[in-house]
Amino acid sequence: MSKKGQSRENKRAASDSLARTKLLEIVERIYTQFENETVPSVSLPSRTKANIEYCDRSDVWVYGDRESERSAKTVKGAFQLLKTTYATDFIINEHLTQNRGSTLRELYYISEGWDAAKFKEQAESDRLIEDLELLTTLQREFFHMRPEEDGATMFGPIELTEQTKRGERNIHCQKDVGEGGYQIPFNVENIEFKKHDASMIMAVETGGMYARLIENGFDEAYNAILVHLKGQPARSTRRIIKRMNEELDIPVAVFTDGDPWSYRIFASVAYGAIKSAHLSEYMATPKAKFLGVQPSDIVEYELSTDKLTEQDISALRSELSDPRFESEYWKEQIELQLKIGKKAEQQAFAGKGLDFVTETYLPNRLNETGMA
Amino acid sequence: MSKKGQSRENKRAASDSLARTKLLEIVERIYTQFENETVPSVSLPSRTKANIEYCDRSDVWVYGDRESERSAKTVKGAFQLLKTTYATDFIINEHLTQNRGSTLRELYYISEGWDAAKFKEQAESDRLIEDLELLTTLQREFFHMRPEEDGATMFGPIELTEQTKRGERNIHCQKDVGEGGYQIPFNVENIEFKKHDASMIMAVETGGMYARLIENGFDEAYNAILVHLKGQPARSTRRIIKRMNEELDIPVAVFTDGDPWSYRIFASVAYGAIKSAHLSEYMATPKAKFLGVQPSDIVEYELSTDKLTEQDISALRSELSDPRFESEYWKEQIELQLKIGKKAEQQAFAGKGLDFVTETYLPNRLNETGMA
Repeated sequence: MSKKGQSRENKRAASDSLARTKLLEIVERIYTQFENETVPSVSLPSRTKANIEYCDRSDVWVYGDRESERSAKTVKGAFQLLKTTYATDFIINEHLTQNRGSTLRELYYISEGWDAAKFKEQAESDRLIEDLELLTTLQREFFHMRPEEDGATMFGPIELTEQTKRGERNIHCQKDVGEGGYQIPFNVENIEFKKHDASMIMAVETGGMYARLIENGFDEAYNAILVHLKGQPARSTRRIIKRMNEELDIPVAVFTDGDPWSYRIFASVAYGAIKSAHLSEYMATPKAKFLGVQPSDIVEYELSTDKLTEQDISALRSELSDPRFESEYWKEQIELQLKIGKKAEQQAFAGKGLDFVTETYLPNRLNETGMA
Repeated sequence: MSKKGQSRENKRAASDSLARTKLLEIVERIYTQFENETVPSVSLPSRTKANIEYCDRSDVWVYGDRESERSAKTVKGAFQLLKTTYATDFIINEHLTQNRGSTLRELYYISEGWDAAKFKEQAESDRLIEDLELLTTLQREFFHMRPEEDGATMFGPIELTEQTKRGERNIHCQKDVGEGGYQIPFNVENIEFKKHDASMIMAVETGGMYARLIENGFDEAYNAILVHLKGQPARSTRRIIKRMNEELDIPVAVFTDGDPWSYRIFASVAYGAIKSAHLSEYMATPKAKFLGVQPSDIVEYELSTDKLTEQDISALRSELSDPRFESEYWKEQIELQLKIGKKAEQQAFAGKGLDFVTETYLPNRLNETGMA
């Protein structure tokens, strides 16, 4: 193994050892409580809208001080603690010690062998893994927990090294990949960025637009790393965007459809989500800019539209009271959209020709937002 | 450009030229009808269940002799012919001549500039592209039409060359890719297979099981090319499986969940689908073997199960009369499943340990089916 390979191997060992230490702390706490003849319990931040607050330091929304308790005072709480110790044992002895992993779905099935600690449904084991994230302040990737499906891709002027189970892979995300791009792995911490020649990261909602930007050579003309969000982006997608933004100082633009669900895609890239605010500091990119489609673009470019549905309207209304959209800009745009009653897709620009989006729309928007 | 690169470039030119010729034939036919003062019309196979028949030569289900007519005798038919000529013009002059492409969604928007030939909804433009496939006996990939989302991946001992818009890429699907694998492009005809060391192709329904097989080293132990189906597989996924099976003579196994929807996934890989029977010869792999999960496995391995829902039961009943499942084997399995009233997922094997699937279940099944 090369010196660098050795150093990456050490990095993995360090991350496994951190996870082991933090997980052992939880069970030690429970053990000590037993020894001291107190009823075992653990406390963790309560995951409610009321317990979300803005963190000035990191510019993202995080959990506040309110806590909820899992205590063996109740039968339900006792079972939760039992399951916590079984899951911790499994993660330490099967995953970390043997350098293996499983999906959240597999974990649910694995509990079959845990007698009284068997999960009743997957929602329960998923939630337990979130508890462990909160208790350890680590992410489930540290525990080698995989998501069920992954599959976002990126394409652009960046070279990276991925540490895989089969050894290191050096990959240039334009020169060493097919037209589909580089497949982002579930654990982005296994990636080390090498050289890059990028002036921006362009995160794109749909596969159609991602392919359009590649075909039109937008990545070359603007030195852009294109990232396919695939709708609501996976954790690995958000994490790699954040890492490139933070470590390489590359600005991020988010290009989505013009409807309330797409604004939430932008918000989840930029600010994180309420149900996983404990991950915001790790996955959110607060400096990301929204590049459209904006409601004002629907008017200005006379885009082909669809009518807002009832669901769209109530999603827009709820965004007006969402702290993540608390700005003059979003207030104006959302109110305009409610007034015109229309939404538009990013691919609607095709109505003006296949080059319109890369030759007119995006250059205008990059200018407006000061990105080019 | 290398000699081989030149030959691939020629291959693309030949495929574009074939598409151009076949598309021009359609509009020439209409033109001649006008000249001869007959009412223009085109005929194409009718796409109904009643018009599906088994083709002994290719071992797949194809359309029979029944035809339906698009004729300018009716206003609706006249509009259809008008749209056909506009779409043909667009494909020839924008796509083939300029070596560009668009998504089906973009095509719908593009028609905005076609006055009376504008599509009312995307279903209409999608159907027109299917008509063109039937009329030309080519696939929409020849017209450079892209799907909206793609994204299946493969991982295994095969080296290939992909002809991309940025030049040729040589990729070994174990050594040159990250843990996520090789991203299959939308047009698989741009791939040329080089060397391989594979004894089988294992097509896998879920991302969780695909990752499990990679982690457990199944690809190395069995010289297997793992293909992630991602549920109901995309055209490109089915096409690359068929090409590897046909051109390289590698046997194919399909490993899915044990429920009626998964049997349909297998059937679409092996026999194609009714609504696209004109593509069966191009995309179906009739020799593909079903490797499970079988209803009899649910009993034999005492797998963790869910109850069949009403929808599951009626899907199973409808499979009993589906020509693609007309065999003793499927009759027995489906009837057994209706009797036990249960279904199981492929990840349920995790309940017996992380290695059970690769050390016990799959080896047993490969033996039973004579594949290893």
